[in-house]
Amino acid sequence: MNVRAQNQANLAGTGSEGFVADYLLFLLAAASDAASEDFHAQVRAQGLRVPEWRILACLSDEDGQMITQLAQLALMEQSHLTKIIDQMATKSLVTRRSDAKDRRRVRVYLTGAGRKQGADLVAAARAHEMSIIERLPPGEAATLKEGLKRINALYGTGMAGVAKADQMETPA
Amino acid sequence: MNVRAQNQANLAGTGSEGFVADYLLFLLAAASDAASEDFHAQVRAQGLRVPEWRILACLSDEDGQMITQLAQLALMEQSHLTKIIDQMATKSLVTRRSDAKDRRRVRVYLTGAGRKQGADLVAAARAHEMSIIERLPPGEAATLKEGLKRINALYGTGMAGVAKADQMETPA
Repeated sequence: MNVRAQNQANLAGTGSEGFVADYLLFLLAAASDAASEDFHAQVRAQGLRVPEWRILACLSDEDGQMITQLAQLALMEQSHLTKIIDQMATKSLVTRRSDAKDRRRVRVYLTGAGRKQGADLVAAARAHEMSIIERLPPGEAATLKEGLKRINALYGTGMAGVAKADQMETPA
Repeated sequence: MNVRAQNQANLAGTGSEGFVADYLLFLLAAASDAASEDFHAQVRAQGLRVPEWRILACLSDEDGQMITQLAQLALMEQSHLTKIIDQMATKSLVTRRSDAKDRRRVRVYLTGAGRKQGADLVAAARAHEMSIIERLPPGEAATLKEGLKRINALYGTGMAGVAKADQMETPA
């Protein structure tokens, strides 16, 4: 079988596909890269980096989050996140304030400019997401999201991770 | 509602979740990062970088692929891939040879050492994948893979992209 025939067989799912074509980690990475590419270009066109967009989105959902929560949601190490937050503070997108009840804990808040840019980008992200969902068979996106949430639940990432991080930070 | 109650509401899916918790691109990125993390640590422990592992896996499926095909599968720009292939050639994991029919086209082949390391890592990847699948409800992994393949098909990535790249390279 030549290369093209092999590829077409793979696409047709005739059972002759190799390892990579059906490998969960490859499918996840390829789908994530592909679906994100054009939206991330929109983010960069607004002068933001992807982690900055993620932080704006998280704070738009819930302002005043702590670094540990944001690190989970922005999918990065806490040390890296701290640097990004510093840069966002310099750009006047966020401010940091001590927690009212526990002065040792720092919460991150949107500024007016951060709130505006976050709201605009969340609206753009919703539109972009809808443009993907509309091209899938009815119900497919909901099923896919459910499967992805199960993977995240296995690893305690995503919202499951946030709850965990929150629990760790909550004094006994 | 305090932060923890909010997170628990999110986890319970009570409908009070914000944008990020149900955003397809976030769920994809979080699931991909989470599921890959420990396997990629195994890859690095063998002295390989993740793109090198992806190339070994692709060539283990089908030896003698062209750079355009490999770039699709290894999820990277062709210029970056060319550098990685150079480094892998220096490490004696792959060799490059001109296509028998068209000398201008270069194909990448595994060396004996590359084939061995590729086979070992594919076996480890299969075991790792199975450890994830086993923790999901029956049938969930197949459904999830189907959804991810649909996303990749929308974007012409994954195997769909390989077929496309192959078509572009095939002289008329």
